Amino acid sequence: MQSFTPNTLASWDRFTRGNFINSLSGFKSTHLIGTTHENGVYNLGLFHNVVHLGADPALVGFVNRPREAAPHTLTNIERSGWYTMNAVTEPMVAQAHQCSAKYPAETSEFEAVRLEVLLRPECPAPFVSASPVQYAMQLVEVIPIRHNGTFLVVGEVKGVWLHPGLLGPDGFIELEKAGVVTSSGIDSYHNTRLISRFPYAKP
Amino acid sequence: MQSFTPNTLASWDRFTRGNFINSLSGFKSTHLIGTTHENGVYNLGLFHNVVHLGADPALVGFVNRPREAAPHTLTNIERSGWYTMNAVTEPMVAQAHQCSAKYPAETSEFEAVRLEVLLRPECPAPFVSASPVQYAMQLVEVIPIRHNGTFLVVGEVKGVWLHPGLLGPDGFIELEKAGVVTSSGIDSYHNTRLISRFPYAKP
Repeated sequence: MQSFTPNTLASWDRFTRGNFINSLSGFKSTHLIGTTHENGVYNLGLFHNVVHLGADPALVGFVNRPREAAPHTLTNIERSGWYTMNAVTEPMVAQAHQCSAKYPAETSEFEAVRLEVLLRPECPAPFVSASPVQYAMQLVEVIPIRHNGTFLVVGEVKGVWLHPGLLGPDGFIELEKAGVVTSSGIDSYHNTRLISRFPYAKP
Repeated sequence: MQSFTPNTLASWDRFTRGNFINSLSGFKSTHLIGTTHENGVYNLGLFHNVVHLGADPALVGFVNRPREAAPHTLTNIERSGWYTMNAVTEPMVAQAHQCSAKYPAETSEFEAVRLEVLLRPECPAPFVSASPVQYAMQLVEVIPIRHNGTFLVVGEVKGVWLHPGLLGPDGFIELEKAGVVTSSGIDSYHNTRLISRFPYAKP
């Protein structure tokens, strides 16, 4: 196998190291996160690092980069207490990736990338109309990761909207049928093909 | 769209709710995590919720369920300070899923599911020989998520081993070429098909 020591990684330029370490940790769960700025502008940010934290209460987390690198979504969430999470599909991939650009806080990424806003009375943050899997989130906790200045943002699911036909009888949501994509590294997007589901494993 | 309120989710049995919330948050980065028990047994656990935290220092995190539900990997990491992360491919999927079974701490999952141990002088924890993407991790911090008793385990990458031919000139690791899978919910595994990589987005 090809081996790489920490010294090798440290000798690379930051773009090469960034691509390497971002892709190393596997395929990620890309979401567009919708928030409302205090001036009323609807912001939209792209986040690759989303985790399931628990089903009861229904908690989902995402990693936010250091505040100086990615301030808008986090600030809007802290001020309003609410955000939306929207799964990304292949027809939306170019627009979703464009939401990773550093627009000013006063610019609505919805308008900049031409994704339609969907508003719902259950949540003050905007949804992405084109997304087949949308959920409303209420902030629970922003946990600082002191070692590198990033944050784990923990929220509770306060409402879910799915395209019809995705929900199975056992509660499983067929994301593949919805065309939801997964990402690799900072700029690579992939469709999926089911290998298999497995029964609950016992020793 | 089909809508689901928190009251609807709360009315479901815990298996249905678990499938729903686990799959809601998207395709995940499945890894086998190798550790060494204080009695010398090599343990192997399956973890779906892995995130990139930063490239410099190279930090990767994973979510560990509450201690009473999933104690072995976390205890071994806290005692030894080391673990390995090993990407899962289609030929290993059934064995990897079987590692989610609750074996006693004294049982080596490597033996139970017949995955070959690979030892390296750089790390006291065992690697999965069949994995094309293996990395050695040193514990940085175990961060409790107080709201539900789970943990974010933060570690630093201390060595990487890749099958030849996966590393691109810009540092991107072609996980798809390696056959690395992604997971959905608690029991569904998927191959990937590249849609596209995109250039760095600017406003």
